[in-house]
Amino acid sequence: MKDKIKELDNFFLPKSMAIVGVSEALTSYGARYIQALLDFGFKGRLYAVNHNGENVLGFKIYRSVLDIPDELDLASICVPARFTPDILRDCVKKEVKAAIILSAGFSEAGEEGRETENELIKIAGQGIRIMGPNCFGTYCPKGGITIVPGGGFPKQSGVTSLIAQSGQLSEGITSRSFGEGIRYSKVASYGNACNLNEADLLEYLMRDEDTKIFTSYLEGVRDGRRFFATARKYAGKKPIILWKVGLTGIGAAAAASHTGSLAGSVSVWDAFFRQTRAIKAGTLEEMIDTNVGFTCLPQGCGRRISLVSGGGAGTVVGADACESAGLIMPPLTPETEAKLREVLPPTGTSIKNPLDIGNPHPPLSQFQSILETVASSDQTDVIVIRRIFFSIKVSEIFSGTTAPSREEQQALLDIPVNIKKRFNKPVVIILPEEITTVENIDLEEERRQIRDFFFKNNIPVYLNEHRAFTALSHLAEFRDASSLEQAPERSGIAETPSKGRTILSGIIKTASTPVLDEIQCKRVMKEYGIKVTKPVLAKSKDDAIDAARRIGFPVVMKIVSPQITHKSDIGGVRVGLKSEADIKKAYKEIMKAAKDNAPGAVIEGISVQKMTEKGLELVIGMSKDPQFGPMIMFGLGGTLVEILKDVAFRFVPLTGQDAREMIRQVKAYRLLEGYRGQPPVDIKYIEELLLKVSRMIEENPEIKEMDINPLIAYGKGAVAVDARIILEEGAVR
Amino acid sequence: MKDKIKELDNFFLPKSMAIVGVSEALTSYGARYIQALLDFGFKGRLYAVNHNGENVLGFKIYRSVLDIPDELDLASICVPARFTPDILRDCVKKEVKAAIILSAGFSEAGEEGRETENELIKIAGQGIRIMGPNCFGTYCPKGGITIVPGGGFPKQSGVTSLIAQSGQLSEGITSRSFGEGIRYSKVASYGNACNLNEADLLEYLMRDEDTKIFTSYLEGVRDGRRFFATARKYAGKKPIILWKVGLTGIGAAAAASHTGSLAGSVSVWDAFFRQTRAIKAGTLEEMIDTNVGFTCLPQGCGRRISLVSGGGAGTVVGADACESAGLIMPPLTPETEAKLREVLPPTGTSIKNPLDIGNPHPPLSQFQSILETVASSDQTDVIVIRRIFFSIKVSEIFSGTTAPSREEQQALLDIPVNIKKRFNKPVVIILPEEITTVENIDLEEERRQIRDFFFKNNIPVYLNEHRAFTALSHLAEFRDASSLEQAPERSGIAETPSKGRTILSGIIKTASTPVLDEIQCKRVMKEYGIKVTKPVLAKSKDDAIDAARRIGFPVVMKIVSPQITHKSDIGGVRVGLKSEADIKKAYKEIMKAAKDNAPGAVIEGISVQKMTEKGLELVIGMSKDPQFGPMIMFGLGGTLVEILKDVAFRFVPLTGQDAREMIRQVKAYRLLEGYRGQPPVDIKYIEELLLKVSRMIEENPEIKEMDINPLIAYGKGAVAVDARIILEEGAVR
Repeated sequence: MKDKIKELDNFFLPKSMAIVGVSEALTSYGARYIQALLDFGFKGRLYAVNHNGENVLGFKIYRSVLDIPDELDLASICVPARFTPDILRDCVKKEVKAAIILSAGFSEAGEEGRETENELIKIAGQGIRIMGPNCFGTYCPKGGITIVPGGGFPKQSGVTSLIAQSGQLSEGITSRSFGEGIRYSKVASYGNACNLNEADLLEYLMRDEDTKIFTSYLEGVRDGRRFFATARKYAGKKPIILWKVGLTGIGAAAAASHTGSLAGSVSVWDAFFRQTRAIKAGTLEEMIDTNVGFTCLPQGCGRRISLVSGGGAGTVVGADACESAGLIMPPLTPETEAKLREVLPPTGTSIKNPLDIGNPHPPLSQFQSILETVASSDQTDVIVIRRIFFSIKVSEIFSGTTAPSREEQQALLDIPVNIKKRFNKPVVIILPEEITTVENIDLEEERRQIRDFFFKNNIPVYLNEHRAFTALSHLAEFRDASSLEQAPERSGIAETPSKGRTILSGIIKTASTPVLDEIQCKRVMKEYGIKVTKPVLAKSKDDAIDAARRIGFPVVMKIVSPQITHKSDIGGVRVGLKSEADIKKAYKEIMKAAKDNAPGAVIEGISVQKMTEKGLELVIGMSKDPQFGPMIMFGLGGTLVEILKDVAFRFVPLTGQDAREMIRQVKAYRLLEGYRGQPPVDIKYIEELLLKVSRMIEENPEIKEMDINPLIAYGKGAVAVDARIILEEGAVR
Repeated sequence: MKDKIKELDNFFLPKSMAIVGVSEALTSYGARYIQALLDFGFKGRLYAVNHNGENVLGFKIYRSVLDIPDELDLASICVPARFTPDILRDCVKKEVKAAIILSAGFSEAGEEGRETENELIKIAGQGIRIMGPNCFGTYCPKGGITIVPGGGFPKQSGVTSLIAQSGQLSEGITSRSFGEGIRYSKVASYGNACNLNEADLLEYLMRDEDTKIFTSYLEGVRDGRRFFATARKYAGKKPIILWKVGLTGIGAAAAASHTGSLAGSVSVWDAFFRQTRAIKAGTLEEMIDTNVGFTCLPQGCGRRISLVSGGGAGTVVGADACESAGLIMPPLTPETEAKLREVLPPTGTSIKNPLDIGNPHPPLSQFQSILETVASSDQTDVIVIRRIFFSIKVSEIFSGTTAPSREEQQALLDIPVNIKKRFNKPVVIILPEEITTVENIDLEEERRQIRDFFFKNNIPVYLNEHRAFTALSHLAEFRDASSLEQAPERSGIAETPSKGRTILSGIIKTASTPVLDEIQCKRVMKEYGIKVTKPVLAKSKDDAIDAARRIGFPVVMKIVSPQITHKSDIGGVRVGLKSEADIKKAYKEIMKAAKDNAPGAVIEGISVQKMTEKGLELVIGMSKDPQFGPMIMFGLGGTLVEILKDVAFRFVPLTGQDAREMIRQVKAYRLLEGYRGQPPVDIKYIEELLLKVSRMIEENPEIKEMDINPLIAYGKGAVAVDARIILEEGAVR
């Protein structure tokens, strides 16, 4: 069998390539593309194709790919949309391995375009991979291939790869980050993603040896389940940095117009990031800053920061930014403090962490000693240096005296570099922009020279405290991600179905409505190991009294009807029934309420069950996201939680870690631990319960929605008091 | 009486000035200061003072300010700390109006320094205002005065003023923002704030005609109540932009070391910003961006944004940033949409708001028509333009064809400027940095030239979407702030004390403990118009039965003891007592519980009161912040609210608007409106209740803490079921 993922090499490293749509006029897109490839230094065999013309830029123009006397790895198609299906068919006939369709005018442009795109999808099924349509193609220095405009892009390869549907941003992010020193292994703009999508590209680049850092501008995903599973699989192996946009109402609408993407909701993406440990960048700057961090420090770093500042205000700003980013500034050990006291004067400095060394122009030997002392501490994972005037020009302005010579400056710059090497400890520098008007742009030029010097020595340089610590927090997240628990590999439905599966299959076969009644729900759940209060169906008052006698008072009575899902809301529930008289009264009232408030409903009877003891009310739910499939929800019961939306979501399948974390994620978690004298509930049991629910969902794809509400939790165990399952419409005849 | 605030002019516009501490050696701080003043162009009369030396920079050196044959507006003192008191005494004798003490080594440096600083405070009481110590002084181009190093600072005045304790940041923020085009009216670094503090400076600059925008880097405030009252008084009159730092744990600790400032908690500052509508800048960049916005658009602006983007991805990123910042992108009206359809092609564009015009190089006439159409819409307050290639150099790179001529470029740049003028509608431009390496720094230079051109035409230019929309949201906040309700001017205690005041005074006179019992609390509260359940004190079982008979069953019984504030916790409360037997049992149990669980407590008896009907449990509390004084807290009852910290704080005195807003600020607010079939509570009544509590607190400064917990709210009215007041220790003998 062919390795479908390995095939993607053809998009980045083609040995032979045809450009289709190249007129003799050099202004055509195709001709500009060829020119860009030549400028960029494409080393493979290049062919031009067009419906007319003889020669372009020294290349013979073929009428069709079929006429080319060579094997073709890749065809890049830039002809009007309506001609693309025929050309693609020729490519299939020619056994071209891959095609990039750069042309626009497909699904993004309306109905006609959508039909053409559907035709492309069909043709792709015959054995060719397509990138696009409506894209800018790929950039890969190793393959000598570049996007348009990208003739002048660096020929040097790097460790970062980037994917984006948007052509504009594929080019824009790449070119913008060149200035910061970032170099790319592979960039793909994949447009409408009619065939190749982000899940394919993620898998390909995770396996790609040249890619060490994955970045993406992401409006939405076409194959959420696979994208999720892939991202989770590679957690902690390579940083996956996603600039996810469209998370607001207007933003999501704009994404839908732009690339037809379903942007997804905040809580869905929150689950995604938590379960995969992919890195969420809120802005372009954050994505680039984080990328700079990983380029210099590929393993990530720890959370314990030592801040060395040439001034006091910076310690306050830095400390705020550090804590806000979830990083730690551990106090100095007495030894470190004592050593620093030997080096620094008592006035004008603050000898703690953050450390104010008082002077932005420290003498070389003092600066050296300070960094040595800080670096030798066991309490420090990263040294962050701010407001040291590394710049000659800034020193000129600020010291008012003689500026350092170039040699003195170099000696100052070398200190952090040597410390980093000697102690093998990450060093990060904050180097803000200074007074820069157009007139003294040379100041900014010098700043960038210094930044580039440090970057070459694997010391990332940031413009301010917030950007530095945000990037560092992502580096720490990545280091932690390597211990992420992986989901067991298993298919949805086991070969030998479980008893729960068998029961649900049976119910589905005979079901006339997608809504299961409480008794059915609990039968299924029980088989998955979920403890339930056993309901007895009573068809009459006497039945109910009989049931209550057997169960033992007090009992609860609830209406049973597939049409009534919110039983309390219509008055279909009575609790704390202590006697036969209570039962009689409740039966009558419930029946009347059902008739009055749900006139059309088919009443199957009334369920009678044991009244549970008081405990903590919890809710477990499940619903399906259009991109990512089934998600499990956990939260406390009650209207306040509902209003405050204090619930946690996770995609199925849950790992034990997911279960542990989602319970602790809700802000009301302290109530579970026992608050103000209340006893704690059995958290371990609830964790296991969430995994049981996850398994049930995995094994029964017909379940569309499910909830257990309330689940009453106790010091030992928990009981599902009410439950609801709704099947997919298609599952029921 | 002298205008104490107007006197501050002497710090910024001195006609005569002495520099004390100027040795003949030109490297001394004093000499450098004189040099800086000369370079900067100080026009007043300047004198040098030192304990020795004859001449410096052409100035005679006097031995003392007393020897100077001239009146002195200002003395700037830069001698070692221990000499400053004597010099300051000379200044008082000489009737110098103001002194800046630049020297360090005071309270920030330890006990000895603190004593010297206390001496300065005492001397200041004799009639001289002091800025500092431990500061960099002031910068005011109009007065010809500058901070050190600041000889090269712009001589041009501007509309912004800045205050910061930190000298480093006074200089750093100022110089940094020069590059963005900002010019200053006045900058003050006020160091340890031993005499002059942020409240004085705020009042001064609010009254100052040359200052239109107030900015501050703020670690803490010395006189919170006055700072708060001043900021609230000027709400909506001039923008007050505060970069408040030290809001995290480590940040606050760093602020304490740096300037000895109490940084204050997040919830306290949240109240400050809400009640004053001062603008909260999270970072230096945000403060400068906002300042740039107000410099171009002094009136602020509305919230309705039209985004015009030269590409689709930018519409998504822009829409996200817009909504996240609390701004609105209203849909296009059918008319606007129709007009745009005439101008723009159907493919490659998206004709909605945000508008994707498809092309970052629009033809001039098309660009003109688009902006005209958008600007004429009634639905638009601000036009934001992004990713239009205004730059020649960027166009060269991206278009791949011929770049525009300088004339063509200028024509493109003129379009937004003319639109702004013609339609009198704010225009904002997002102009990101492009591929900028050290080698092509000229690209960045051109970007800044374009930025400066727009800035001169009052069009703010931002580096990215988030920064633009964050700044715009602050401009909108300011416009809204002009309608902020002002607190009535009144002193704390009325001349004729109210009945409540008289009762509390009486209680205080005879009190032996600062803790008032429930019965006392309710007596006071009742007089302030707070409806309470009336407790009857029972000293015996029979008393209690008697009381219950008169009140009517069911009743509640609670222990009364000044030592027992959390009555429920020790078992001192029984509710729902329906009969005499219940009362007897409860009496016995409560007494036993009190004896067992609070052995030392003095038991005054047991209070008996009517059991209130079920309603929504609320809590109103009050405590004192060390910087800002009394604050009122509002929230729902229950442990969940406690855990989630879903409460709102406001400083006293509350305005009606404060009361309305603080109720609506809690996330659980929807429960008050009636949620899931529950009846709504009397919100208007609770608003009034908060104002009554505020008045009670204002009139009784002896109250240290207070709470009403629970306050039971109904469809009509609300009742304080339990209450607690604790007095200041000093108030009780």
